[in-house]
Amino acid sequence: MIIALSGGVGGAKLALGLSRVMPPEDLTVVVNTGDDFEHLGLSISPDIDTVTYTLAGLANRELGWGRYDETWSFMETLDALGGETWFRLGDRDMALHVERTRRLKAGESLSAVTAAFCRQFGIRPRVIPMTDDPVRTRLLTESGWLDFQEYFVHRRCEPVVSQLQFQGAGAARPHPAFMAALTDPSLEAVVICPSNPFISVEPILAIPGVRQALVACTAPVIAVSPIIAGKAVKGPTAKMMSELGLDPSAGTVAHRYQDILDGYVIDHADMSEVVSIDARVTLAQTLMTTMEDREALARIVLDAAAVLRRREMRGVRQRADR
Amino acid sequence: MIIALSGGVGGAKLALGLSRVMPPEDLTVVVNTGDDFEHLGLSISPDIDTVTYTLAGLANRELGWGRYDETWSFMETLDALGGETWFRLGDRDMALHVERTRRLKAGESLSAVTAAFCRQFGIRPRVIPMTDDPVRTRLLTESGWLDFQEYFVHRRCEPVVSQLQFQGAGAARPHPAFMAALTDPSLEAVVICPSNPFISVEPILAIPGVRQALVACTAPVIAVSPIIAGKAVKGPTAKMMSELGLDPSAGTVAHRYQDILDGYVIDHADMSEVVSIDARVTLAQTLMTTMEDREALARIVLDAAAVLRRREMRGVRQRADR
Repeated sequence: MIIALSGGVGGAKLALGLSRVMPPEDLTVVVNTGDDFEHLGLSISPDIDTVTYTLAGLANRELGWGRYDETWSFMETLDALGGETWFRLGDRDMALHVERTRRLKAGESLSAVTAAFCRQFGIRPRVIPMTDDPVRTRLLTESGWLDFQEYFVHRRCEPVVSQLQFQGAGAARPHPAFMAALTDPSLEAVVICPSNPFISVEPILAIPGVRQALVACTAPVIAVSPIIAGKAVKGPTAKMMSELGLDPSAGTVAHRYQDILDGYVIDHADMSEVVSIDARVTLAQTLMTTMEDREALARIVLDAAAVLRRREMRGVRQRADR
Repeated sequence: MIIALSGGVGGAKLALGLSRVMPPEDLTVVVNTGDDFEHLGLSISPDIDTVTYTLAGLANRELGWGRYDETWSFMETLDALGGETWFRLGDRDMALHVERTRRLKAGESLSAVTAAFCRQFGIRPRVIPMTDDPVRTRLLTESGWLDFQEYFVHRRCEPVVSQLQFQGAGAARPHPAFMAALTDPSLEAVVICPSNPFISVEPILAIPGVRQALVACTAPVIAVSPIIAGKAVKGPTAKMMSELGLDPSAGTVAHRYQDILDGYVIDHADMSEVVSIDARVTLAQTLMTTMEDREALARIVLDAAAVLRRREMRGVRQRADR
């Protein structure tokens, strides 16, 4: 069994790759919900939706969010009515948000709703929110504290970020299936997908018990760098790192995961950083443009995990031999 | 100034006719809100929407509800997700419901939201809900009490109706602009549109003060029969009358408005009923198929009102002469 920790686009791409090179039922994708928000009365879970749309083969690759088979009558009409249109919601996408909101109000958990949607979409990997409790990422900027989507979509990541906060994380309980998977003897690896560390992975790690469980986990933890040659493939990762006074590099990201990391996959372009990384490094092409790229990177990650497991076993044997 | 009391389709057709044969700014359409309901977390006002879509030239004449320029991606996807689809919501229509729900939750009144939408749609007559307070039409059937839309849409008016209830009507306040218009010296007529008396007009009349204000009103009150030759043009009016033990006829409808009615417009087909009607009767073609039909009927109604006003003035003069 493999656990993948994922944010939106980058994470979803690798999760899709993994689901195609291994038995998909053995993959559990744990998704960040710090981006979730309430908008126009709807409960929206952008990262969960990107992951499910991607795994269902419905993702809009051009936009990087939403569905490829989308229509826009709702948004057009909302615009004509003078409504708020900065967060684009397609007509088909709306069905997901309306139905999720209805079910949540009726008392279902986010994970139950997500599981139901995954079944309807025919998705075979298990997709679970990091928690069923509300966690909201907020950013301190020169305009004060901003809600995540206000910063990310409405202000297009323009404000300079000086601090992040995962509101509610302290009181949130990690999803029980996530915690159970982390101690499952059949767990073969935990993959930290190439998502933004600050806004996609760290909200997951901020939930009490998760970081400790990853440290204690017997399966190797392998991350894929979201930074290639000092740049983020997508989104504000590099910009945010600079603003936070960090060098935007693959090495800096590894440093943030230092206590939990066994393996790290970086791009060939970042070979020079190998020496600074305190984990077993694998060089690869980490840019995932085609489906073949996704699958190839997934295979590399799984192979690296297998190597780490063998090493660990050898270590255990050697320790036992002494 | 003319006030039109309206339900959905039939009422909206005559309101549209009126708006085209008189200065549209002088027309106030007071709309039934007993059909309003909450569905999928949205506040839906079917009669207000039919009236506004009709006045905006956006109504879907084939369906008899919604917009002509509609797309259905939302509903298709909701269906695929296993959501409730018995109440059909088009993608453009959704924008109205989502925006209305948002504004109501933010504390705006239904009348303020309706006025804002009318402005956006470029509608010149004034459209006001009968009240800003919640009134919900319920029907006692062989399946027990049903909410209006459950009966009307979900069960296609099939259950036999024995009683109606306008929940909340007793505590509702008629919209102040409606009451002000009824005592406005420039009021020339109150037109009761050819809507279902039980579910479209009587909820309006059930609000405390409305019926009395119509009795006291100096302008003539003229109704157009929704029944032609014992049949309703659309909807369950005739079926419901039979179930309630009433003869489905133009005369029966007039009888329900007896205390407030000065004039009554019936179809040529119902000429034989003239003798049983206690109001000045005008014969006309009341079936509105084309735009010309709508305008012609509107003119007949306005002419009938003018005759009644002249009569009344003569009466006043005669009384003064004595």
